[in-house]
This record gives sequence, structure tokens and C-alpha cells, in this order.
Amino acid sequence: MGRVTVRRQVSRITVGRPTTVVPDTLIAEEPLELRIGGRAIAVTMRTPGDDMDLLAGFLVSEGVIRTRDDLAAMRYCAGADADGHNTYNVLDAELAGHVAEPASSLQRSLVTTSACGLCGKTAIEQVEVALPYDLTDDRVVIDAEWLCSLPAALRAGQQLFERTGGLHAAALFDAVTRERLVVREDVGRHNAVDKVIGWALRAGRLPAHRAVLAVSGRASFELTQKAAVAGIPALAAISAPSALAADLAERVGLTLVGFLRGTSMVVYAGAARIAATTPAPDPPPALAGAPHPTPSGRGR
Amino acid sequence: MGRVTVRRQVSRITVGRPTTVVPDTLIAEEPLELRIGGRAIAVTMRTPGDDMDLLAGFLVSEGVIRTRDDLAAMRYCAGADADGHNTYNVLDAELAGHVAEPASSLQRSLVTTSACGLCGKTAIEQVEVALPYDLTDDRVVIDAEWLCSLPAALRAGQQLFERTGGLHAAALFDAVTRERLVVREDVGRHNAVDKVIGWALRAGRLPAHRAVLAVSGRASFELTQKAAVAGIPALAAISAPSALAADLAERVGLTLVGFLRGTSMVVYAGAARIAATTPAPDPPPALAGAPHPTPSGRGR
Repeated sequence: MGRVTVRRQVSRITVGRPTTVVPDTLIAEEPLELRIGGRAIAVTMRTPGDDMDLLAGFLVSEGVIRTRDDLAAMRYCAGADADGHNTYNVLDAELAGHVAEPASSLQRSLVTTSACGLCGKTAIEQVEVALPYDLTDDRVVIDAEWLCSLPAALRAGQQLFERTGGLHAAALFDAVTRERLVVREDVGRHNAVDKVIGWALRAGRLPAHRAVLAVSGRASFELTQKAAVAGIPALAAISAPSALAADLAERVGLTLVGFLRGTSMVVYAGAARIAATTPAPDPPPALAGAPHPTPSGRGR
Repeated sequence: MGRVTVRRQVSRITVGRPTTVVPDTLIAEEPLELRIGGRAIAVTMRTPGDDMDLLAGFLVSEGVIRTRDDLAAMRYCAGADADGHNTYNVLDAELAGHVAEPASSLQRSLVTTSACGLCGKTAIEQVEVALPYDLTDDRVVIDAEWLCSLPAALRAGQQLFERTGGLHAAALFDAVTRERLVVREDVGRHNAVDKVIGWALRAGRLPAHRAVLAVSGRASFELTQKAAVAGIPALAAISAPSALAADLAERVGLTLVGFLRGTSMVVYAGAARIAATTPAPDPPPALAGAPHPTPSGRGR
């Protein structure tokens, strides 16, 4: 883990007090080139570590693979820098024989035709990845009080944040067993989520039925889409979601929770999956397409 | 500004209390396709508004243009969606005649050759944009006590955050006049910074001598690079920088401040530009290549 943090001399300045120069721990950030079959498909700035989870999760998020069987192997490129050391900054994936080779560019967001791009499409069509699962099939019941415990469980699983204060985190929880399955950290919030999803793929857990993905920051459209593509029925964010994230969640039947703090939360879509500890005097209308699940006793 | 926020019905859940369904304000997030001369170069998920600043700043960050004279015009594509409304999601830039047309892809980070990409390069070479200015020439003195006031000034300029809680912000300040020049907000922190830099370009203020760029979150390598490319000598972040950001800042002579909270801060590079209100008993060693400026009396 030596590459994950870096020691530096810094100046600590407090108004009215003498300046001190002290050693400090910073989080590492390095580019990782992602390849399929030797062909570069993307470069992401990431915190080194869990790179295979990151590549696997990226391939899930981009719709290239769905389950563990779709990925034959991953390996670091053997090349070395000028000092003869492997940079560990190039990672190559070998797809299973039955998986279709992705288009020459995965960058669906880069419109290369001279046609009128977004003009004739809605915003959401332009950036959408096809969803392989119908999330409304997942009728897991998520206990509200347990949900409120996730931010602390996410924070407790962060190995690096306490030392550096510079990281986003994402974690996957099982809403039935209430187990915390995995926590991943990264300077990039998309990377942290891709690392979680890649872990789930490599553990044979995709689609991630009855899971809750918790993230330390905001819920953007892209994070919401990543959850949906992995078959995760619920996304819980400490901070706010965007309107487009809420639109997507409602349309695909994903439960989207924001401002998950203390003993309260705001539910933007899919509220029917959440079992409030105290029933409302009048049941709230279901915001998502999913029918209200029959409480099974599990997870309550 | 109707497109900047969206009203939705949400469920507010607090453990032990009845659930309420209430209207809430969410921040908008939509894709913006960026074009040069009709050719699509990128799509970014952004908060609508200040799109021309965003495009102009993106072109500065990518090294395509440097000053206002390099940009002849910008206009929204005239196309319409199925309902006949302009989506305002496609924006085209016309470069001035003297500006070299950028390569067919601006995506320097996407290695398309089959050669060994990052292996023979250091990480920083791979993702670097050429810097047009020598920041060490900028010997502005930045008062530490004034720096501590920037987070509040940044927050005070955020029109949308209070209503939605879902936005990153960036602001540009003049370290000599102590004026807040511009504040921009976006769901994406890179976009918020590009909007600020684009504003500065369009206002004829690039390179942004004696300016401080303040950001609401972390200081990544890419944000630090955006500041340097715009000729901004100092970047101040509320949260932590990455090690690569500190490396870059030190190498190019940019002052990098993190954890700017209350009356204190941590300076990761270029501490020589900061005038602490109380001199240190022993002057701290200069961390950046810049010589310690001679205090001019301005800005103190």
C-alpha cells in the first residue's frame, strides 16, 4: 500500500500563530490506462489500489460485461519506466470468448458524427447505457433505521480517509443480512463506485440483488446509472442527488436516498422499498414503478 | 434560470416520526455537447447555465485557446427536440483564424496507439497539458488572514447551493484588490472551475495574474492543472489535495493551499507567496521554485 499515500513537507499556517513546517500524508493520484485485449479504451486519474476491481467495474458500468464469467483475465502491462520499474499504471482485460468485442470507442458520450447530436434526442437518451436488469423485480425491504446506520459503517470502513481527508468512498451492503460487503476509496467518486461494482462482479455477486450502494458524496446521474447497470436496487448518498439522477431512478425502479444523516433521509424515488420504523398516518404514494413489497420479516 | 433547478415530490423519513411527502428543489444536471467548428469534441454532464463560460474554460484547460482574441464566437446549435424546443445542450465554438485547429481528438488522455502507453512515461507526462505561462513570474503577496475569509466569500456567492445542497463551487479572487471576481456552481467540480476560467477569458483577464482560485472541495491534479494553464498563481481548496496535485504545483510554481478552514490552512507548495500575519520565528523554507516576493505593501 506504499503507493496509496505520499509523505510531504507542508506549512501549517494559523492566523496569529507561528508557521510550522511539518510532514504530512497525502493521498496518491495516478493515471490508470484501461485496456481490452491490448487496446487502450480510457485513462482515469485514480488512487492506486484495487485496480482490477476498478477495471472490472468500469467494464460493467460501460455495458461491456455483466458477470464474472464474461471476464477471462486481467493483467498489468509488463512495460517499465525509465528506471526499469513497472508503473502498474496500465491494466489489460481479456474478455471471455462469448463476449462481443466493444465498439472501437467505448466513449458513447463522444459524438463523432456530424449529425445534430443531442438536438433530436432527449438529454437522457444521449448518455444512457442499456440496463440489463429490471430493478422492479427486486422487492427487497430496506429498514429505515438500518439505513441511517450506513454512513457510520461507510466511514468506519475507510482506511485512508482518516489519514488524508482526501477521498471519496463507496460501500455495498446487503439489506437482508445487513452485512457490509465491501468498502472502496478513491480520489474520484466514479472510481470508488466502479471499484465496488468490480469487486461485486469478481465475487460473483452481480446482479447485486437486495444490495444498497452507499456513497460519501452526491448522487449524480452517472453514479445512479452505474448502480442500475449492476442490478443494485438502492443507492444512498450522504449528500444531494441531481434531478436527472432522480428521474433515472424513478424510471428504472431504483430507490434513491439522499441527505442520509443522523436519523433522517430524503427519498427521491422508490420509497416503496423503505420500511419506515413508524408507519405514516397516511401511506405515502409509491414514487417508483415498483409495487410495494410484501414485508417478509427478513431484514426488519 | 428555470432549467437550473427542478421541483419534485420527495418522501422525508425520520426514524420514529411519520413520513411526509413534500415538494423539494433539486439541482438540474444535463449533458452539454461541446463543439469546435461544428465538430463534437466532448460531452460533459453539467448544471445548465454559464455554458459559454464552460466551453471557453474547457478550451483553455485543454490548451486550445489562451486569450479572448483566440475565440471568434460561440453559439447554441439551432436543432430542436421532438417537441420543437431547442435543447440548449449543444454549443459550438468558432476559433479565431490565427488559432491552430486542434487535433481530431482533444482527448489527450485516450491513448489510441498500440504502443506501450504509460509504461515508458512517468504518470505526470501522460496527462499533462503544456503550460503557456511561467507562474514563478507572478510574485503577488497573498495575505493569510484574507485567505481565511475566502471560504465564506465563496459560500456567500453560491446562489444555488442553499436551495439544493448539491453543488460544487469555484470562485476567482484578486489577491491585491481583494475583490471577488466571479463565482460559478456546477454538479461537476471540473465544470465549476472551467466556468470560472472561461469567465476570466471572456473578461479579458487571462493570464489571471495575482488571482486566487478557491474551490469548495478537493484539489485534484486536473483542477491544479486547469489553474496553471490559466496563469492563476494560487489554488485554495476547502479540502485535501492529492499528492500529484502538490507535485505539479511545486514544479510549476503554483501556490497550493488545502484545508482552508476557520483561521488555518495547510500549504502544500508555493508557501513563499503567503504572508502570514505573524511572522514565523524561523522563516519556513520556500517550497516552490518562486523566490520569496518582496512585500510591496499592496494587499497586506
